[in-house]
Amino acid sequence: MLINRRHVAAEFLGTALLVMAVVGSGIMAETLSKDVGVQLLANAIATGGALLGLITIFGPLSGASFNPVVTLVGAFIDKGVSAVSVATDIVSQTTGAVAGAIVANIMFGHATFETSQKIRTGGPTWFSEVVATVGLLLIIWGGKKAGAHVASLVAAWITGAYWFTSSTSIANPAVGFGRMFSHSFAGIAPESWPMFAFMQMIGGVIGYSFIKLLFIENEVNA
Amino acid sequence: MLINRRHVAAEFLGTALLVMAVVGSGIMAETLSKDVGVQLLANAIATGGALLGLITIFGPLSGASFNPVVTLVGAFIDKGVSAVSVATDIVSQTTGAVAGAIVANIMFGHATFETSQKIRTGGPTWFSEVVATVGLLLIIWGGKKAGAHVASLVAAWITGAYWFTSSTSIANPAVGFGRMFSHSFAGIAPESWPMFAFMQMIGGVIGYSFIKLLFIENEVNA
Amino acid sequence: MLINRRHVAAEFLGTALLVMAVVGSGIMAETLSKDVGVQLLANAIATGGALLGLITIFGPLSGASFNPVVTLVGAFIDKGVSAVSVATDIVSQTTGAVAGAIVANIMFGHATFETSQKIRTGGPTWFSEVVATVGLLLIIWGGKKAGAHVASLVAAWITGAYWFTSSTSIANPAVGFGRMFSHSFAGIAPESWPMFAFMQMIGGVIGYSFIKLLFIENEVNA
Amino acid sequence: MLINRRHVAAEFLGTALLVMAVVGSGIMAETLSKDVGVQLLANAIATGGALLGLITIFGPLSGASFNPVVTLVGAFIDKGVSAVSVATDIVSQTTGAVAGAIVANIMFGHATFETSQKIRTGGPTWFSEVVATVGLLLIIWGGKKAGAHVASLVAAWITGAYWFTSSTSIANPAVGFGRMFSHSFAGIAPESWPMFAFMQMIGGVIGYSFIKLLFIENEVNA
Repeated sequence: MLINRRHVAAEFLGTALLVMAVVGSGIMAETLSKDVGVQLLANAIATGGALLGLITIFGPLSGASFNPVVTLVGAFIDKGVSAVSVATDIVSQTTGAVAGAIVANIMFGHATFETSQKIRTGGPTWFSEVVATVGLLLIIWGGKKAGAHVASLVAAWITGAYWFTSSTSIANPAVGFGRMFSHSFAGIAPESWPMFAFMQMIGGVIGYSFIKLLFIENEVNA
Repeated sequence: MLINRRHVAAEFLGTALLVMAVVGSGIMAETLSKDVGVQLLANAIATGGALLGLITIFGPLSGASFNPVVTLVGAFIDKGVSAVSVATDIVSQTTGAVAGAIVANIMFGHATFETSQKIRTGGPTWFSEVVATVGLLLIIWGGKKAGAHVASLVAAWITGAYWFTSSTSIANPAVGFGRMFSHSFAGIAPESWPMFAFMQMIGGVIGYSFIKLLFIENEVNA
Repeated sequence: MLINRRHVAAEFLGTALLVMAVVGSGIMAETLSKDVGVQLLANAIATGGALLGLITIFGPLSGASFNPVVTLVGAFIDKGVSAVSVATDIVSQTTGAVAGAIVANIMFGHATFETSQKIRTGGPTWFSEVVATVGLLLIIWGGKKAGAHVASLVAAWITGAYWFTSSTSIANPAVGFGRMFSHSFAGIAPESWPMFAFMQMIGGVIGYSFIKLLFIENEVNA
Repeated sequence: MLINRRHVAAEFLGTALLVMAVVGSGIMAETLSKDVGVQLLANAIATGGALLGLITIFGPLSGASFNPVVTLVGAFIDKGVSAVSVATDIVSQTTGAVAGAIVANIMFGHATFETSQKIRTGGPTWFSEVVATVGLLLIIWGGKKAGAHVASLVAAWITGAYWFTSSTSIANPAVGFGRMFSHSFAGIAPESWPMFAFMQMIGGVIGYSFIKLLFIENEVNA
């Protein structure tokens, strides 16, 4: 089975640069401001700015998922994707995410390897991650169906979703995994990650159902 | 009479996600910052980010009005729209708006059902809602006439209008209805809603006149 | 001589809504935040959001200058524009600007007619207005030459220029005239307006020279 | 050897206006707010707003590099560029950057010539400049390869990168050179500049390798 090296590099690098942007701007934000609102505003705008570029430049190489849930939903919608390709993407994304956190740690003079102590837990937060993931999936596949520039939509949506979900819309098991390695504003404690990933998978299932109902051709006749 | 299920789902879901974004970011904002300016900035940017995606993805399914005034003005301009279709849209929008507020309440650990105590009243505020609605309608139909990407224009306009109208540009009876069910920054007390809805209808009539004068082909000869 | 009514209405309404956005968001900003940085950030983002929509929707009707300097430079570049058309535009823009300030005053419960006491004066500020006007003109005609979406460029540029010029880039004698009627953050004292208008005219002459050198076809051979 | 005057003017003026925007908004920001987070947010948004316009309008004249590293990498990728052209660009960019800082100083009533005392040094900061430069290069050439509007990508990316790199992503030896002449938030002390320029050159080499691996046609077969 042939694996395209550029495809792998794009998922690895794209996820790495995304996590670097999320974590780096989180560290910068808590260093510069005492107003947590200003911190999240900076973190959200920086993440959106990075997403626009990364999805645009890596899209032609790998589809620019940077997200195991997006990769899996994509494989269910587009039947031609092989299991090896899915597995390779998820490994690329997860290792990329860790690499991104490490790069951010080095840039900001943190310990190269550190772990988050930021507990993110509880029913409302878990429910929020389900909603966040469903929302992200609708934006991606609705945007594709509408023939829109998906990178712009995702960048704007995530900038907003940092604010309008109580969990700040991680919505991505790989990015969440990488964020475990940051002792900062943007981190997530290792003990909180598994339930986040589980909720994101549930969001993936629900999101997939919505996408079929709303955006897949000839699925609904009324 | 045939009702398209995807059309109904799009108006319901779109309005729900919009109100969820408005209310959710309002709650997050007042939790994180003590500076009300920072709160409104976050609320405005999050609303704009959500609008861009939602109008883009649901536009092809239902026109993505999410707003009874927009639906009604559309029906007056485009004579082929049936009364049943208009009524169905308004019901979808209003119930969607309430659902969106409830989802936000659950995500942020609020009571599932709660009502706003935020009184929004007085001549300047009412006048502001008329202006806000006229402005929104001009942007939508002027943008269509110009062949522009209307979702971008509306997203940017509303982000600004949260600031440049004293009523923070609700400009939407359905979204206003949903916001009654949020005891937060973004709420509107039930006793304040009717006059807001009435002013938005007046804005709809005035906006419709402006649209005819400015943007409907062959209406003006000079 | 035939005057197109929609053209006149577009210049009047566009300038009115622009000044309303500038003044309204200025009042809201100083009401909500004590941090002048947050105030200007809100004022700048709101102005940009309004500009994107207004230039886009009124462009096809009147060119959407909303600015006597832009109208005059346009007349020098495009020789076919009549003196009556230029004069009508400037009257529309100036009266529109005043109307916009009045609408903002009413929306925010200020006196309908009020004047600014905000002195804006001194060499650096005047120099800043020259630079601001040159910059705006380059963006408009450079954007046209490049075949870009000029409304987006102007909106983004002005959002930035509120920050990177010491005069907050009024760069528009009509908008400046309207802002005299606002006793707020965004106002300009009547005694400060004439030198601003004069500096903007100088900026217009310099900007016109740059445009000819850089963007007018067959002007430079090297 | 023929040097195109418009090309030279575009690199000079574009870099000048960019540095003016960076320095001017930095001065304004530290004047208006005491929250350093708000300062950097304003500085970042103003820089992004300026970049969108400047790259768009000067792109057709000179490619709108405004950056010696971008010019050099471009010369390595596009073999037809002469050494004289590269040298002329770098001189235009560097003198333009200084001119831009001087214009900002005059607008804000600073001494016309002043130097920064802002030490930016240390391993993490230097590493950050390498990363910042690599990121910028990937966005530019990846965006070109994807057929995207590169000005939008660069504007959004840099707005974010001010936050997610510890060095605030100067990523440009010419702009850094100009910023030495500003005693402000946005300045860089003359003794800190050489290592920044050196790190940016290293970033250029690494970025060039990535671009070849990822975006140059027929380079990778897998």
